[in-house]
Amino acid sequence: MKGVILSQNPDAQIVDITHDIPPQDIEFAAFNLLACYRNFPAGAIHVAVVDPGVGSDRRALIVECADQFFVGPDNGLFSWICEREGQWRAVNATNERFFHHPLSNTFHGRDIFAPVAAALSRGREPRDFGPLVEDIVRLESLEPTRIDDQTIQGRVVHIDRFGNCVTNLTKEMLRSAGQPAAWRIALGGHEINSLHSFFAEANPGEVFCTNGSAGFLEISVRNASAAKLLKVERGQPVIFTASILTEVVPRTH
Amino acid sequence: MKGVILSQNPDAQIVDITHDIPPQDIEFAAFNLLACYRNFPAGAIHVAVVDPGVGSDRRALIVECADQFFVGPDNGLFSWICEREGQWRAVNATNERFFHHPLSNTFHGRDIFAPVAAALSRGREPRDFGPLVEDIVRLESLEPTRIDDQTIQGRVVHIDRFGNCVTNLTKEMLRSAGQPAAWRIALGGHEINSLHSFFAEANPGEVFCTNGSAGFLEISVRNASAAKLLKVERGQPVIFTASILTEVVPRTH
Amino acid sequence: MKGVILSQNPDAQIVDITHDIPPQDIEFAAFNLLACYRNFPAGAIHVAVVDPGVGSDRRALIVECADQFFVGPDNGLFSWICEREGQWRAVNATNERFFHHPLSNTFHGRDIFAPVAAALSRGREPRDFGPLVEDIVRLESLEPTRIDDQTIQGRVVHIDRFGNCVTNLTKEMLRSAGQPAAWRIALGGHEINSLHSFFAEANPGEVFCTNGSAGFLEISVRNASAAKLLKVERGQPVIFTASILTEVVPRTH
Repeated sequence: MKGVILSQNPDAQIVDITHDIPPQDIEFAAFNLLACYRNFPAGAIHVAVVDPGVGSDRRALIVECADQFFVGPDNGLFSWICEREGQWRAVNATNERFFHHPLSNTFHGRDIFAPVAAALSRGREPRDFGPLVEDIVRLESLEPTRIDDQTIQGRVVHIDRFGNCVTNLTKEMLRSAGQPAAWRIALGGHEINSLHSFFAEANPGEVFCTNGSAGFLEISVRNASAAKLLKVERGQPVIFTASILTEVVPRTH
Repeated sequence: MKGVILSQNPDAQIVDITHDIPPQDIEFAAFNLLACYRNFPAGAIHVAVVDPGVGSDRRALIVECADQFFVGPDNGLFSWICEREGQWRAVNATNERFFHHPLSNTFHGRDIFAPVAAALSRGREPRDFGPLVEDIVRLESLEPTRIDDQTIQGRVVHIDRFGNCVTNLTKEMLRSAGQPAAWRIALGGHEINSLHSFFAEANPGEVFCTNGSAGFLEISVRNASAAKLLKVERGQPVIFTASILTEVVPRTH
Repeated sequence: MKGVILSQNPDAQIVDITHDIPPQDIEFAAFNLLACYRNFPAGAIHVAVVDPGVGSDRRALIVECADQFFVGPDNGLFSWICEREGQWRAVNATNERFFHHPLSNTFHGRDIFAPVAAALSRGREPRDFGPLVEDIVRLESLEPTRIDDQTIQGRVVHIDRFGNCVTNLTKEMLRSAGQPAAWRIALGGHEINSLHSFFAEANPGEVFCTNGSAGFLEISVRNASAAKLLKVERGQPVIFTASILTEVVPRTH
């Protein structure tokens, strides 16, 4: 893919975000992109190839969102970014003149996404590549579910390489529930009601909650893998309960 | 290595192809290079360091082939590329003025291959580095063996990170054998006679053949590792049999 | 981190040294940096983020040493470089105007070290970022201990991906002890007294000593992992004994 890009645009600056996505793991890749795209400059072109449907009739997308471009298969890779941003536009890249030929059926990263990204980097407009699409394939929303006045159900949406369990709950929920004593989070058979600002603040072995760098609450254990210790898998429900809602005092910070 | 290159040529554009070659695995590296070199622009300098013979009298090569340069130990890393291209030229890089000093005996990537590549990138001619060589160390050929009119014996030449088993058979053999019913491929105790254009076309659990992106037939299982399921190791024979050769009709596509 | 750097300095040239540091393993990272920094050009800015103390009161350092810059947490990552070079200067990067906001408590790589490195790359002086510090956090010294006239005690300071056990002993010790017969190295229950210039010189299965590319003696097995075979862990003592010190003849090479 890098060879294809540099063949078309020798001045392209290519950086790797990660090559450690488990095979076929669309959600893992989607989360990694979600966590970092905002840190890239306007005009950045993100090429993401986790593509179990390669060769089938799944579409090849160019998504414009947040002043950036996202190029890859239409399988949900960019759906959390679109969900967060609200505003986006996408085309189905069908114009074969931008493809690398001969076109394989099993490596569209090399034959479609890389050359399309290279053409974009040289100033082509998304509409040159194909027609606008109405909607894109969506992963399960990152919005947690409100069960009742005291309960919100989320899930583990990502487990990072350190074993931190990233949820789709946010610090705003904790704030609305007041002091730490007033809430608890249930994950598997475990109950968590301590919140730390950073890892080194926790006691060894303590399972705690932290406000993660991607904007979500994470369940962590200091210098250890919370996922392994608690036997957590991605997708597991996380139940947030505010036990003393009558005492709720919104915090200003 | 990158530091050595950038010290000599601050404008060099360095991209990583992969750092996931298993230790000492020359064939794994050779296949990766074979699969991608054609996608790089003319003049690209490929530096490959899988080097169990480092420090011994194995030669340090600069190979010119397909308008590109290949720099690395003479242990077969580039032999499949030379075999495919037919035309090539190589020198033994012995001129120590291009080496990094003090010269170690255990890391020629840093001390020989990187500085030689940097000097090449600044316009040095291969002949400046040392004498032409007659031949290079060769890996076992990628040419399969014709056993009889109905049988071709190949082998698994690579297993990728998804577990696809890449063979040295090609789609041209299937074509010459007519319809899929007319051929079968034996691998281990398994017999394969289905061909799919892409992964998502196969049924779950089905072992099938696909025309891989590197130009070889691959044995695959959808969303799973064929290598693990079939307990295949690299080097295992793959027997292609055309059972109804009398019905052979070359296909135009 | 790359996005943050490129947002501030689109001309920055970013290269990855490695992303294979085990989680929280400061010594592993410190050794990797020690082994390669001298190969980078003057002015290079090394950003290293192995940061179990992120968010706590551990300092954020900019170290100037060997005409290069080192940016990262004050936890020992750069201490072996400072120990080797002797001359260095460091500031505590406290000036929040150079930070990425909002500032997280768990990812200072993105929010402090990357933007500080980007500002440095655009010409800012280290003193702009905060006050000079008197000393930095130190890892255990790489200096081995002289036990008596015949014995030096070192330790395994690094195990590389091939399983080579890098010690903090140097070839100068072997030289001062004369011929190979005159010394031995004890590691675990094993005794080593063969020295080879390179791996391919050794016999299969032989445990031997080599003068590694990072400037230290390494214990190796050809085409195998010495660490696995000998069940060695980092930190284990390595005892060098010169048995015939009366015969010591310093070698000129």
